Amino acid sequence: MTASPLTRFSVAPLARMTRRLAEVAAGRTEPDRVITGARVLSTYSERILPDREIWIAGGRIAAVKPVGHHRGGAPRTDVAGGLIAPGLVDPHLHIESSMVTACAYAEAALINGTTTIVCDSHEIGNVLDVDGVEWMLEDARAAPLNIFLTVPSTVPATTPELETAGGDLTAEKIAGLFDAWPEAVGLGEKMDFVAVAAGDERAHAIIRAALERGRPISGHVYGRDFVAPYAASGVTDTHEAVDADIADDLLEAGLWIFLRGGPPTTPWHSLPKAIGTVTEYGAAWKRVCACTDDRDADDLLAFGLDWVVREAVARGIPKAAAWAMGSLHGATRYGLDGEVGGLGGGRRADLVLLDDDLVPQATWYGGELVVEDRKPTPRLEEALARPYRYPAPAYATVRLPDPLPALIPPLPAGPCTVNAIRTTLPGIELSHERVALAPGADWAATLAAHDLCHVAVIERHGRSGGVAHGLLSAFGLKRGAVASSVGHDSHNLIVAGLNEADMRVALDAIAAHQGGVCVVEDGRVAAMVPLPVAGLLSDKRVGAVADEVRALKAAWERAGCSIPYMGFNLIPLSVIPQIRITDKGLVLVPEMRQVPLFEAA
Amino acid sequence: MTASPLTRFSVAPLARMTRRLAEVAAGRTEPDRVITGARVLSTYSERILPDREIWIAGGRIAAVKPVGHHRGGAPRTDVAGGLIAPGLVDPHLHIESSMVTACAYAEAALINGTTTIVCDSHEIGNVLDVDGVEWMLEDARAAPLNIFLTVPSTVPATTPELETAGGDLTAEKIAGLFDAWPEAVGLGEKMDFVAVAAGDERAHAIIRAALERGRPISGHVYGRDFVAPYAASGVTDTHEAVDADIADDLLEAGLWIFLRGGPPTTPWHSLPKAIGTVTEYGAAWKRVCACTDDRDADDLLAFGLDWVVREAVARGIPKAAAWAMGSLHGATRYGLDGEVGGLGGGRRADLVLLDDDLVPQATWYGGELVVEDRKPTPRLEEALARPYRYPAPAYATVRLPDPLPALIPPLPAGPCTVNAIRTTLPGIELSHERVALAPGADWAATLAAHDLCHVAVIERHGRSGGVAHGLLSAFGLKRGAVASSVGHDSHNLIVAGLNEADMRVALDAIAAHQGGVCVVEDGRVAAMVPLPVAGLLSDKRVGAVADEVRALKAAWERAGCSIPYMGFNLIPLSVIPQIRITDKGLVLVPEMRQVPLFEAA
Repeated sequence: MTASPLTRFSVAPLARMTRRLAEVAAGRTEPDRVITGARVLSTYSERILPDREIWIAGGRIAAVKPVGHHRGGAPRTDVAGGLIAPGLVDPHLHIESSMVTACAYAEAALINGTTTIVCDSHEIGNVLDVDGVEWMLEDARAAPLNIFLTVPSTVPATTPELETAGGDLTAEKIAGLFDAWPEAVGLGEKMDFVAVAAGDERAHAIIRAALERGRPISGHVYGRDFVAPYAASGVTDTHEAVDADIADDLLEAGLWIFLRGGPPTTPWHSLPKAIGTVTEYGAAWKRVCACTDDRDADDLLAFGLDWVVREAVARGIPKAAAWAMGSLHGATRYGLDGEVGGLGGGRRADLVLLDDDLVPQATWYGGELVVEDRKPTPRLEEALARPYRYPAPAYATVRLPDPLPALIPPLPAGPCTVNAIRTTLPGIELSHERVALAPGADWAATLAAHDLCHVAVIERHGRSGGVAHGLLSAFGLKRGAVASSVGHDSHNLIVAGLNEADMRVALDAIAAHQGGVCVVEDGRVAAMVPLPVAGLLSDKRVGAVADEVRALKAAWERAGCSIPYMGFNLIPLSVIPQIRITDKGLVLVPEMRQVPLFEAA
Repeated sequence: MTASPLTRFSVAPLARMTRRLAEVAAGRTEPDRVITGARVLSTYSERILPDREIWIAGGRIAAVKPVGHHRGGAPRTDVAGGLIAPGLVDPHLHIESSMVTACAYAEAALINGTTTIVCDSHEIGNVLDVDGVEWMLEDARAAPLNIFLTVPSTVPATTPELETAGGDLTAEKIAGLFDAWPEAVGLGEKMDFVAVAAGDERAHAIIRAALERGRPISGHVYGRDFVAPYAASGVTDTHEAVDADIADDLLEAGLWIFLRGGPPTTPWHSLPKAIGTVTEYGAAWKRVCACTDDRDADDLLAFGLDWVVREAVARGIPKAAAWAMGSLHGATRYGLDGEVGGLGGGRRADLVLLDDDLVPQATWYGGELVVEDRKPTPRLEEALARPYRYPAPAYATVRLPDPLPALIPPLPAGPCTVNAIRTTLPGIELSHERVALAPGADWAATLAAHDLCHVAVIERHGRSGGVAHGLLSAFGLKRGAVASSVGHDSHNLIVAGLNEADMRVALDAIAAHQGGVCVVEDGRVAAMVPLPVAGLLSDKRVGAVADEVRALKAAWERAGCSIPYMGFNLIPLSVIPQIRITDKGLVLVPEMRQVPLFEAA
C-alpha cells in the first residue's frame, strides 16, 4: 500500500468535513484515533486541563473530552499523563534564511513542534520576481507543513537608484499574487519604513493593493519617531521591536507584537528586552506573539519557535500563556484560529506532546504521527524523500560581470576621510565611522594601520554588472576572504577580504555553485555552503545543510570575523541604520542618501 | 452649506487614506482636529494612559501622542482629563428586537457609545427572505453607524413540517448574500443546534457555504452534551452560555464567548453566571466579548452595551479589560480590529468620552461629534431626519386567513391530559407541563380552575392559513388578550387570551397596522406598538418607539402576564426547550417532535 503524499492538503477543508466531525463528536461514528491519558494545554483559556482524551477523525479534532468518554474500538494512544498542546504557529519567518527549501524546512519545524508557518519569501522574490515567489509557493504546497505566505512587499528594498535587484514586485504584481494564491494571507514586512512614513507613492500603492483585498500589512520599523506615521499607514504587526519602549509604543499604536527570539550569539534575540512591555510595563499579552524571523539551518533545530516560547517562560510568562503566544495569537492575527492554534473542535489535529519544560517529544501533523523522540517517523521520512524540485531557471541565477572589474579601489594618493562601515555586535545596525585615512605603502599596510578590510558588492542579476567598493571597520578578518550570495535584500554578491586574489577565489566558488556562502584562506576554499537554488537555497535535507553551516561557522570564527555570517549578509541591507553598501555604493540610513567612500580630509 | 450624509461611508477606506494619515502623523500636514487633555483607555494593553492627545484626519486616527506634541493650528477639543475610549463593538444583536430601523437604532447606539454593531437580521429574513435581508442592509448602509451583518443561517428556524415561515434561506441564497455584500462578515447564529449536531444535510450545506467563503459561523446552543458536535461543525462563537460550566466548555471547544447582558427583568442577563468561566474558573478573557443580543426600544437606552461592560466590571473585570471585551475583542473575532475597537493608527475615529464609571458622556463618529451630554448633536439630528425608507412590499406582510378560523379549540368532552406550556421567568426556556384536565362548564371555568389561558398561533404569510391552539400554564393573564406579530422566528401571529372576542380584537388591531404588539382589555386596545415594516419594525425615531413600548409594558403588567412581552414573543421559537407552539402545533425541544394539545388521560 502506498500512502498518499503528506501535505497540508492531506486533511480535507473543514467546510467538507463538518458532518462527519459532528457524527464523531456526538458518538455516532468512531474516531480514527483517540489520544488518551493527556493533560491538555489550552491556548484559549491559558490553563492546563487534566485527564483529557482527544478524538481525531479525518486529520481533525472531533472533540476533546474527559478521559474515559470514548468506549468504542478506535485505536488509542495513551500518553500516560503527558502534556498535549496545539502545534506552534510561527507568524513571521523567512524560509530562505535557513538556506533550505520549504519541503526541507518542514522537517526541522515538525521536530520542534511547529506545524504552521507564515513565511515572507522576499529573498527569492528579490532574485526571481513573481516566478520565485510562485515556485516557493509550489514548494510550500508540496511540504508536510501548513505554510502560508505574506507576499513580499518591498522588492527591491529601496529604489533602482540605490541598488540593483533581480525582482521588482510592483503593486500590480502583488495584487496578482493575492488574487491567485489564497494562502497569501497578508502583505509581508514593509521594510522601507522611511519611505512609508514619507508618504512614498509606490510604497502606499502596494499597501493599498493589500488593504483593498482585506489582507493585513506586516511591518518592519526602527525608531520611536517612525511609529506613528508607520501605524497610520495601515501596518498592524511588527517583529522588529528591540526594546520595551518601542514595543510598548507599537502595541499602543495598534500593532500586534511578534517577539523575536533567536540564538543569543546572533542579532535576533530581541525578545528579552521587548517583552518588557508585558513584564515591566504591564501590558496585556493577548496581542503578543512569538516568532523566529531568521534561522540558519544549524540554529533551526536548536532554536526553534519552541525555544522562543521557553524564553518567554524564562522571562515570567506562564507556560500556557507563552505557548498561546507561540500558537493561537499568531493564528488569530492572520484569521487562522478556526483552523490552527488551539485544540477546539474542527481544528486540524496538529498536536505536540511536551515534557513539563515545554520541550516537544512527539508531533502529530493532521492526525498522523510525524515525529517521535525528536526523529522523523517513516511516514515523514517518506514525505521528505519526495520534495518539490525547483525548475531549471531557479538553478541559474548568478550572472557575474565578465570580465570581473577590480574588487578593490585604487589606494588614495593622500590623506582623506573614509566613510567606513563599523561592524559591531549584535550586527543588525551598523555604525557610520568616519576614519581619517593616512595611506601607507600599499593597501595591506593601510588596512592594518586602520583596522579596516575591503568589502565589495557585485551585481549578479546580469543587469548593470556594477561593483561597489567599501571598507569595513573592526571586522576582524585575519586573512583571506569571506563571501556570500545571500546579501540582503537584492542578493547581489558581497565579498570582504584583505586582498583581491582571495576575494576572487571566493567569488569564483560561488559562481561555480550558482550560489553559496564561503570562507577562503590562502587561496583555497576552507568552507562552503552551496546554495544553487536562486543563490539562496540548498536542495539538500536540513540535517545535511546544518552540517555544512556548522563547518562554515567554524571557519568563519577561525577567520576572525567580528560579526557572524548572518550579520555579514545584512551589510547590503539599505533599510537599517546607519550605513550600508549596495552594488551602487554606500548608503546612509535613514537619510537614504549615497555617500562616496573617500572624501577630502 | 449642506453637509454630506453621515454614514459609515463618510470616512474613506483606509486603503485610500494611508498617505494622508502618514503625512499627518509625521507632522507634515495638519490634522483636522486634536482632542487633547485626555486619559486614553487602551483596549490593546488594557491600561489607562495619562496625558494623551488624539490627532484626527479624514475621520480616522492619525496618531495618539503625549499631550503637547501638537503645535499647529488645528482645532482642538480639550477634554480636561476625561477618559477617551474607542467606540464599543457589539458582536451580536438583532436590530429587529428593538422594533426600529437600522437608521433609528443608530441614535440609541451612539448615545451609549456603541459605534459598530454586527447584526443578524434573521427576523426580517424570516418574513421577507432575501429581499428583507437586503433592504435592511440598505437601511444599514444609510445609517450613521458601522453596521456589519451575520447572514441569517436558520430561516426557517426549523422545518416546514414544524412551522410555516415567510422566508426560506437556502445555502444558495446565503452564498449569494455573502458574494454580494462585503459587510456580511459571518454566518448568523446557527439556531438549529439539534439539527447541526445530528448532521442534518441542509444545516451543514449552509455552514459549508459560509466556511468556503472564509466567513466564520456564529452559534446558538443549549446543553453541555451538544457542545462537542456543535463545535466540531465549525461554529466559533456563542452568546447563549447560561452559566459558567457551559461557558467554560464552549471556550475550551474553541468558541469565542459573547457574554450577553440585559435588563435583569428580562431573560437576557446571562453574563453574571457565564462570566464565572473567568472569575471562578480562571480562564483568560482574551476570547471573551460582551454583547446585547436583544433589546426593546425602551431598554435600548438604559441597558446598552456600555451597561453590559459595566456589569462585567461589577463582576470583577478590570475597567480597561471590560471595555476591551466590549470593543476590541468583538472586532478581532470578526477581523475588524484594523478598523475599529482600539485607538491604533489608521482606525476610524469612533471615540467615546467616559466618566470614571465608564458612562458615556460624548461620542465622536468618524471624527464628528454626534452625541454630547447624552443628546444627539445637530449633525446627528440632520442624519436621523433623513432615514432609509423601506419599499412598499415591506409594509404589506400581515396576510391573515380569511375568514379567520376559531382561535380556541372545542372544550374536551371529558377528562384528558393537556400538553401545556408553563411560562415562568426568566422566560427563555419553557417547561412542558402535563396538566390533568377536568373540563368545567365552559372554557372560562376550566381555565380558571387550572390556571390556564388560551394561546393561538396564526400563520400570517398568506400560505397555509393555519391556526394552532395551545394552553399556557401560569401565564397570569387576568383579562382580555395580548398579541404580537413578532413571535419568533417565523413571525406568525401569536395571541394569548381568556376569550375568543378579545383575542380577535387584538388580531384585528395588528392586521390594521400590518404588524405590532398589543394588549386588549374588555374589547378595546389598551396599548399598542405598531410595527408596519415587515410586521417587525416601527418607522419612527427610537425615542417615540420607546415611549410606545413603555406604555405597552405598563399595560402588559396590568394585564398580569407572568413573563414580559419579549418572552411571550419567544413562545413559538421551536429551538429552545422544552415545549413551544408554532402555526403547526405543539413541538417538544430538543426532541423536535410534535405533540397534540389533548391526550387521553
